[in-house]
Amino acid sequence: MTEPATLATSDLVDLLAAVCDIESVSGDEAALADAVEALLADQPHLEVTRDGDAVVARTLLGRDRRVVLAGHLDTVPLTDPPNLPTRLEGTGDDRVLWGRGTVDMKAGIAVMLALAVELGRPGSEPAVDLTYVFYDHEEVEATKSGLGRLVRNRPELLTGDFAVLGEPTSADIEGGCQGTIRVDVRTRGVAAHSARSWRGENAIHAAAPILARLTAYEPAEVEVDGLRYREGVNAVGIRGGIAGNVVPDECTVTVNYRFAPSRDLAEAEAHLRDLFDGYEVTVTDASPAARPGLDDPLAAEFVAAVLELTGGEPKPKFGWTDVARFAELGIPAVNFAPGDPSLAHADDERVPVRELGVCRDALRTWLRGA
Amino acid sequence: MTEPATLATSDLVDLLAAVCDIESVSGDEAALADAVEALLADQPHLEVTRDGDAVVARTLLGRDRRVVLAGHLDTVPLTDPPNLPTRLEGTGDDRVLWGRGTVDMKAGIAVMLALAVELGRPGSEPAVDLTYVFYDHEEVEATKSGLGRLVRNRPELLTGDFAVLGEPTSADIEGGCQGTIRVDVRTRGVAAHSARSWRGENAIHAAAPILARLTAYEPAEVEVDGLRYREGVNAVGIRGGIAGNVVPDECTVTVNYRFAPSRDLAEAEAHLRDLFDGYEVTVTDASPAARPGLDDPLAAEFVAAVLELTGGEPKPKFGWTDVARFAELGIPAVNFAPGDPSLAHADDERVPVRELGVCRDALRTWLRGA
Repeated sequence: MTEPATLATSDLVDLLAAVCDIESVSGDEAALADAVEALLADQPHLEVTRDGDAVVARTLLGRDRRVVLAGHLDTVPLTDPPNLPTRLEGTGDDRVLWGRGTVDMKAGIAVMLALAVELGRPGSEPAVDLTYVFYDHEEVEATKSGLGRLVRNRPELLTGDFAVLGEPTSADIEGGCQGTIRVDVRTRGVAAHSARSWRGENAIHAAAPILARLTAYEPAEVEVDGLRYREGVNAVGIRGGIAGNVVPDECTVTVNYRFAPSRDLAEAEAHLRDLFDGYEVTVTDASPAARPGLDDPLAAEFVAAVLELTGGEPKPKFGWTDVARFAELGIPAVNFAPGDPSLAHADDERVPVRELGVCRDALRTWLRGA
Repeated sequence: MTEPATLATSDLVDLLAAVCDIESVSGDEAALADAVEALLADQPHLEVTRDGDAVVARTLLGRDRRVVLAGHLDTVPLTDPPNLPTRLEGTGDDRVLWGRGTVDMKAGIAVMLALAVELGRPGSEPAVDLTYVFYDHEEVEATKSGLGRLVRNRPELLTGDFAVLGEPTSADIEGGCQGTIRVDVRTRGVAAHSARSWRGENAIHAAAPILARLTAYEPAEVEVDGLRYREGVNAVGIRGGIAGNVVPDECTVTVNYRFAPSRDLAEAEAHLRDLFDGYEVTVTDASPAARPGLDDPLAAEFVAAVLELTGGEPKPKFGWTDVARFAELGIPAVNFAPGDPSLAHADDERVPVRELGVCRDALRTWLRGA
């Protein structure tokens, strides 16, 4: 047996490196969950609950408002050769930490851990009660989601008035998230030997109008709560044909629609059925969008505190994130954390350490003063 | 060890059943090749040569013309449950023999074996010299072809003035064969997350004009040596996309062009490159067409002898067959044998036994009187 890993929060960069160096590819989060649980259980101001490889820590200060900070512990698989342990490059404020998880989303986890240890100590009381949620299985199929499991098993632990999800935003505020729906659009034909193709009907040829409609499609830009969401309808897969001498009797185009929070799932599905009218359309996967929720008073205070430090302005989140799960619970939520989201899952995943301090300081200011 | 199987030619239907019941899926032709070799080696008028699982038997009568009768011994795999042993249904002239190989092409093999035993005996001399070629590995990739191997190893055994290939034609004469060429037509794009699809270029969408050209394509009908060949250009496969959230950067349409013997391979390729002008086109597979060769005097005698028995008229062969290999050797060749070609490889493969006698009688008349 190896010694269980321990975490210390005195230096944010060291903390992030330690969190990343405990590998936690989806399904293998136990060691990191153990280290997180051990660290938090040592804090007298926190009540800690473990559920599988999820850890929930809460202050119980009797405040009239509660903020949830949430983030997933798992990462996508390492590269080959492995992009761990982490390595630090550069000097001072220009240092960059490289390695799997630095962006998606252990930088957010490190900021959450530092705040969890600090806020609640004597002299550092927050103005709101706080709930920290660290969970497993985000980077895999939705049915395995540790956050989804917590919603089912321990919904009472997830109550709150506002949530900040530590998905990477380059320390910008990214509100809400787009929804996503996937459909298979299918054509059918009649198989025949390709030497006598006039006896068949070619299902791949029959897909020509489907691709033509996709090519002609003009995606919308939709403003929701002051943020502009840019939609997209894309073929993400096409499959047809069983042999080099057979006229195919089936062709399937898999289409992914990313839609603004102005539409619910039913409307998104109806939009696709309308677009592919006349074809067999089967929904294979769907997750709702989340409105940015920036009209909430707690959100307004959060935005003001962050923008005072970072400048800039809130943006829409294009990818789907677990803010949608909080939206389903009726909790407005935003994404806010270090790291360039376009580097999530990338082989050259890396985070500028400067953003760690920016995010921690902005959250600390807001949570103490709110 | 089991007894080696033996064949007798006194009854054509029994002979066909025996040939079929010796399973000979491609790569497993040895038992049938042994039985064929043993039968033919017993005939004093034949010189027999074995090459792998191919058997060549020749008369050496000093005639000034030589006819080649050729057929493959192998079949496609059995069905599950197996469609062997054969079973005979019906009565008298309406009997039908069911089972793997009955059509493709052991009916042709049985007719060849019966003629090989008969023609050359005292009182049954043929008017031409005869070469019977039984070969392995026709139903698999062309590089394994037993006929191709014979061409390389023993070309002197394959000389002749005219060839009849025992591929099923329902006892019609099917002249020549279409050529076949396969190309991959490829589009390229730029990968991106489907939530930010405007950063990418969708390679599947880019394939829309390829499918549109296929849909608009009007295949030619071409007359060659009096037979009308009907061409076809078909997508036989399409593949694109690597994940449900990625704008694909590549899409490949596999296209099969079946072309009349009026074009050679270079012309067929040029036709496809012209059709898909502007796209990346890669040839993956190509086999030339064969002209029907019905203007040859031996062919004319053959046609006359057959049509006197069957009525009807010569037709084009649409599928690719080994007549193209004989054409490459400079030997005009036709397809002629019992069995409906559309039942080749079918689960319900079956042959009307009446066609066995028709083919044997037509060939016998021609070969004795020619």
